[in-house]
Amino acid sequence: MKIKVAINGYGNLGRSVERAVQSSSDMETVVVFTRRDPSQVQTLGAPVVSLAQAPSYQGQVDVCICCGGSATDLRQQGPQAAALFNTVDSFDTHADIPQYFQQMEQVARENDHLSMISSGWDPGLFSIARALGEAVLPNGETYTFWGKGVSQGHSDAIRRIPGVLAGVQYTVPQEAAKQAVLRGEGANLTTADKHLRVCYVVAAEDADRAEIERAIVTMPKYFDEYHTTVNFISAQELAQEHSGMPHGGEVIRVGYTQADVKHALRFQLELDSNPDFTGSMVAASARAVARLHEVGVRGCVTVLDIAPALYCERDAATLRQEIL
Amino acid sequence: MKIKVAINGYGNLGRSVERAVQSSSDMETVVVFTRRDPSQVQTLGAPVVSLAQAPSYQGQVDVCICCGGSATDLRQQGPQAAALFNTVDSFDTHADIPQYFQQMEQVARENDHLSMISSGWDPGLFSIARALGEAVLPNGETYTFWGKGVSQGHSDAIRRIPGVLAGVQYTVPQEAAKQAVLRGEGANLTTADKHLRVCYVVAAEDADRAEIERAIVTMPKYFDEYHTTVNFISAQELAQEHSGMPHGGEVIRVGYTQADVKHALRFQLELDSNPDFTGSMVAASARAVARLHEVGVRGCVTVLDIAPALYCERDAATLRQEIL
Repeated sequence: MKIKVAINGYGNLGRSVERAVQSSSDMETVVVFTRRDPSQVQTLGAPVVSLAQAPSYQGQVDVCICCGGSATDLRQQGPQAAALFNTVDSFDTHADIPQYFQQMEQVARENDHLSMISSGWDPGLFSIARALGEAVLPNGETYTFWGKGVSQGHSDAIRRIPGVLAGVQYTVPQEAAKQAVLRGEGANLTTADKHLRVCYVVAAEDADRAEIERAIVTMPKYFDEYHTTVNFISAQELAQEHSGMPHGGEVIRVGYTQADVKHALRFQLELDSNPDFTGSMVAASARAVARLHEVGVRGCVTVLDIAPALYCERDAATLRQEIL
Repeated sequence: MKIKVAINGYGNLGRSVERAVQSSSDMETVVVFTRRDPSQVQTLGAPVVSLAQAPSYQGQVDVCICCGGSATDLRQQGPQAAALFNTVDSFDTHADIPQYFQQMEQVARENDHLSMISSGWDPGLFSIARALGEAVLPNGETYTFWGKGVSQGHSDAIRRIPGVLAGVQYTVPQEAAKQAVLRGEGANLTTADKHLRVCYVVAAEDADRAEIERAIVTMPKYFDEYHTTVNFISAQELAQEHSGMPHGGEVIRVGYTQADVKHALRFQLELDSNPDFTGSMVAASARAVARLHEVGVRGCVTVLDIAPALYCERDAATLRQEIL
């Protein structure tokens, strides 16, 4: 019996989830829920229905993967889905996780479901690396670097500046800062020491480029505390060179077991497509949720509560033999 | 109530475990078991008794950490301890894990205990990285590189050659092989492509150095299939520069979510002291075992069955808020 997956919301992430489920022989996407006109949604094969019909799918879906494109979407979508199904989502507003967890815990328990929140890579795989790092090196410090990758929020901020037709912002980790961390000298690094911000901007023909650059590099919170570079390029170059959604990053834990005995743990990701990789992780998480619900686990969980073998298609005995 | 730990066997690993337990405020080492004369064993503070007295400690120990120095030791020590206590060990003969698992599963269940086998870093943290890699990138390949670090087995093999007074062998990963793997071109790499073997040898004054070098580089299984370099140094230099037990390595998973969409996951360790880091991981594993036994889990488990939060001293709600 394959694990029956519903995909709730079909943007970049929803499509990547459908692709990930297709590459797993033990799962299938049985339905896509959308708030749009279902006839306008082109999937890779899964049937599409209006989100309003979701209640009629109870009993036909093992796990509903919520692919709301923003934290705002998920705050509504998550509890609604958890009332009907087991769920997985990639809620990524770190500061609001405790509150969202409580909300999902309550709804899932009331409805005898299991909900996994905040899966993906950060939060997600990076959280696992941070937990293992602090467990095994309690006397130490954890550092997270992001990039090289496209920051959607910073790219949007650039595009709101008058005279900007299009733009992309890359967050670039500073190798010198990583090396300082690995030497055990990371304590005083600021966020700006750790990352560069590199912008590629398509300006309107009559725009004042110096003014655009000034507006970017002085923008509060987004850019003013960072070393930011602005490159003006053509619309054609932007389309050719910067249309992907690469991302990645690194978690580093450096710690000591004796005064002069140092250890470093590093977990790095280099991703050609942020939504594809996130989609793969939430699909694997759906497998874990289906299995845990089967053995009686209820309420809300995160990656910190999930044993590694539960994400894998291969069974525990095979994993012990092949990869332990 | 602190988690009460017994340490079974007090060599390099046992001492490192005692140190790791000391740096955790929720655990304490209540006893060390030894096969030697207890009066000859100098711990960092824990009381030492003969292994023969272990049965009288039932009820006073939450988890017994078996620190047998070799797979041979553990094959006996593990089941004996699992009959008396919950246990953790670092059994690392990969090929024999399924059989050892069955043995420990049976003894632990019969005695209402929980045993975790094969903790440490490989098997251990590296196994977690391999499991997560295959779960999130099912269409991919996993590569494990070891080093730079001291291989005890290869160092021993060098020391058995006539005319060799002392010696150390470092396994050194080949950066070119890692880069090939990351480009998605790792399929045809041999073990020799992935690692160098670098030897530091102290020869007797009258020894034939050319003959020693020939004996090393042509030694079947150990060296003949590798690129091996031999450096003759003084006993003083060996003591000053090569008396530590550094190790480390890297797990790389490279996979595709679409034909031309590639992702890489890398998990690296750089360890000043192999026993200290292994000791830290098995101590954190003892915490997980105590918690799981408390909630009713019995039998045998490995790192693949343990949720990350269980290893951490901080509670789940704090971890969600601080590091998720």
